[in-house]
Formats: sequence, C-alpha cells, structure tokens
Amino acid sequence: MSHPFDDSIALEWLGEDRWQGATSEAYWNMVGPFGGTIAALLLRAALDHPAREGQPVALTVNFCATLAKGAFTIAARPARTNRSTQHWTMELVQADGTIAATGTALFGARPETFAHRPATPPIAPPFETLSRFAGGFSGWVERFDMRFAEGGPETAEVPGPARSLLWIVNDPPRPLDFPGLAALCDIFFGRIIHVRRRMVPFGTITMTAYFHATDDDLAAAGAAPVLGLADARIFDRGFHDQSAELWTADGRLLATSHQLVYYRDPQ
Amino acid sequence: MSHPFDDSIALEWLGEDRWQGATSEAYWNMVGPFGGTIAALLLRAALDHPAREGQPVALTVNFCATLAKGAFTIAARPARTNRSTQHWTMELVQADGTIAATGTALFGARPETFAHRPATPPIAPPFETLSRFAGGFSGWVERFDMRFAEGGPETAEVPGPARSLLWIVNDPPRPLDFPGLAALCDIFFGRIIHVRRRMVPFGTITMTAYFHATDDDLAAAGAAPVLGLADARIFDRGFHDQSAELWTADGRLLATSHQLVYYRDPQ
Repeated sequence: MSHPFDDSIALEWLGEDRWQGATSEAYWNMVGPFGGTIAALLLRAALDHPAREGQPVALTVNFCATLAKGAFTIAARPARTNRSTQHWTMELVQADGTIAATGTALFGARPETFAHRPATPPIAPPFETLSRFAGGFSGWVERFDMRFAEGGPETAEVPGPARSLLWIVNDPPRPLDFPGLAALCDIFFGRIIHVRRRMVPFGTITMTAYFHATDDDLAAAGAAPVLGLADARIFDRGFHDQSAELWTADGRLLATSHQLVYYRDPQ
Repeated sequence: MSHPFDDSIALEWLGEDRWQGATSEAYWNMVGPFGGTIAALLLRAALDHPAREGQPVALTVNFCATLAKGAFTIAARPARTNRSTQHWTMELVQADGTIAATGTALFGARPETFAHRPATPPIAPPFETLSRFAGGFSGWVERFDMRFAEGGPETAEVPGPARSLLWIVNDPPRPLDFPGLAALCDIFFGRIIHVRRRMVPFGTITMTAYFHATDDDLAAAGAAPVLGLADARIFDRGFHDQSAELWTADGRLLATSHQLVYYRDPQ
C-alpha cells in the first residue's frame, strides 16, 4: 500500500516539460490541499524531470489561488544550467486554466567545502515525553503527529507567542525525502492564529525553502521526528512573515524556510 | 541630472508584457551589475506594468547567470489577480538569449488591521558617529555610504562573525522607493567573506524580500540612513543562507530579506 503523501504528490509525465496530477483528499485543508503538498508537487516536477542536475538547494512557491478539486498540470522547465547550479521555473495550472501556483527551484552540486554552523539547535524535551496535538480542525493535520514543546495552540496568553517549537513526524511514518522536507517547511500553523488565539481569515501566499541537507542526510534522518521552530518578526496591515528551521534530533539543520502570510483581522 | 540608480534601472516599455533595458556602469560589481539593481529591475518591470494592482509585498529573484554588458529585455506578466493580492512572474533575458534572472513578485492591498511587532530594532551608535567603510573593491560599493556598527570587514577575528550591523545611505542621496528598497535588500556583503576574512568565489543565487512598508512609509523614510542587520545560520557544502532586516532610525521595519549564496572554498 502506498503512503497517502505519495498518493497526494503523484504525477504522470506528459513530455515537453509537463506533468499531469490530481488533487487527493488525504491532505485536505479547509478549502484546498495542504500547501505543503503543493510545494512538494512543484519541487517534484523539477526534481523528477529528466533534465534535472544536482540536489535541491532552494524552492520558492507562490500560492496564487485555492487549488480546486480535480486534475491539474504542472509545467517545469530549466531556465538556466550552470557548471554546478541549475535554475527551474514551475507553474501549476488547474483544469479550468487558473494558475494556482507558481514557483522557482534551484539545484546544485554539494561538494565538501569549508563549513560553519552559527545556528544552534533549539532545546526541547524528547518527543516521547510530550503529548500529541489533538487538532482535528483540518484533515491534513491528522497526517502528522505534532508535539508542541513551546507555543502550542493551547497557550492561554493573549496575544500568544509568535514562536512555536514542536516535534513533527508523519502519520503513518514515512522516510524523509526532498518532497517530504518541502512539505514540512509549510507545516507550521499561521503565526497569526498563534498570536490571536482564534481563527481569522489567513493564508500563506509565498514560501521560500532553503535545503541544507543532502540525499545522504535525509536517508540518515529516516522517519524519525523532526524538530521545528517557527517565529515571526512583524504582523502589519494585512501581512505577516514567518521564518522556520527544521532540525534532526541529533542537531543537524535540514532546512530553513520563510513565508509571507496574508491575513484579514480588523483592529 | 538623474540619479545613477535611476539610470541603472531605466526600462522602456515594449508592450505585450515586455520591457527593454541596458546595463549601466554606475553599479558595476566584479563581473556584472550589482545584484540589487537586477532585483530592482525585476520589481520595476511588474510595478510599472499597466496591469499592476496593489503595493509590493514580496519579491523573489533568482540570479541565473552573470548579466553581460549591453541590452536585455524583461518579461513581466500577471499570473493571477485575486481580490486583494496579485502574483507576477518575471524573466530577464540578455541579447544572446541567455536567461540571466528569473523572479516572482506579489502585490497586495495594505488595509489597517491588527498589528503586532515582536521583532525589536537593533541598537547601533548614530550614523554620524561612525566612519564610512572605505571599500573600493567594487564600483557599486562607492554608491553607498556604509557605516559598520558591528561585524565590519576590518574585524580581526577568524572565523569572523556572520552577523553585521550597519547604516546604509545612497551616495548621492536618493529618497527611498520600492526599487531602491529591493536593492538595499541585496546590499550586504557575502556572509562567507565576513566569516573567512578573505575573498573566496561566491555569489547570491536567490534572494527573497518581504516588504513591510507602504508607499507612505517610504515617503516618510526619505533619503535618511537605513539600519541593516544581516546574519547567517549555516555554511555547508557550497551554500550558505543569509537573513537580513532593514530598519529606519526611528524603529520601523521596512523589509526583511533572505538569500541563498553559492560559495566554493575547500576545507
């Protein structure tokens, strides 16, 4: 039996830089698929393209419109291939012609070089000692076992902290790969909800992920819980930012991601 | 007399979503134009397009190839217009057909909403009390009066700090606008140079900027010095990240930006 995440990011090659896919119910959000699956789909469209060279290093996904249930195509074309980096442009178009997402991706060779890691891993109690977030407000949330160490949705404080620290693992378990990592980059609930402690209209409109792990690092990470840290700098006039880090339990930074989130919440 | 920055981002409308431009010497970097002018050009191509609605909120620019001296065209087309946001896709193509840069931009309405600003402005000695960085290694550096409060290139420490805090003002002075702000997002020297304290082959391959200011905020900021803070989380196997903030002297966060930078530096 295939994993529901793999079902939700299945693509059929049409040739000429195009893929065919269809939405899946398993990771449904309130009005469309979980954005993480859209990020994973756009990355896959380039990653699995026969002309792709190198490992994923950066991905930007713009969420243009709620993706309607049904079929869609993704165009992914190499814009430029350099000696050790390759730039891609992607576009997801639903059956009625609406462009639902655009994106760009970068791939590169990952030779050994000077390395330096000023960022230190956040400190959290072990996964096993925390209890699972009992979400249930959205189908996709059930596909992850999330355990908050800080800034969970049950925090009583108003305004709540913009910062959250949590363990995340796929349910059912699934070994990490680049599409899975791209999806984890979008897993954090909107910071506006954490701060306001109530639902307001909101949605991520753009996300950029930087991948600091290689294929070998992801193989080593396997299906173990990943520690996610998300925070925001500013909420102002309809938009807020978010920056996030994804760490292995043994302190390797797998990815960093940044978002701009739309919200509407009168004073 | 026009400002050299305006000369360097001059574009002529060709119709059908296309602009014509040419490289300028005033902001020359070692082998091509300062990336900030390319970011400003891609933003302008959408910002000045007759179909544009709303104010700039996000910009991603991928630096695909060194832009050769001479003419280029920029294609900028609206991918999706929603009720209060608009998504754009841009591509800069030089005369020989090479795609030198790709990008996406987001525009949006900026109504008054709930606001919250967890990020606090960095503290630096006043602009007037610091001395100007005497760079000179690259033409574009002369176009900015940069005054380091922390982590300047003269720091003796090896590895040097990844974090820099500096005042920045255009030379000659120029009132802030969105293209100018987009260029400031790319003004920070490669963190790898700050850490290694010597030149190594490097270059920004992608930058994402989030604009937290409106037209009115930029008009209020005028031509005054802006306080820039840049830092990095990880340098590993050929790539490092960078996150930066741009603040007014009175503590308004104008923009945040994030980059992935390519470097080659054997152990």
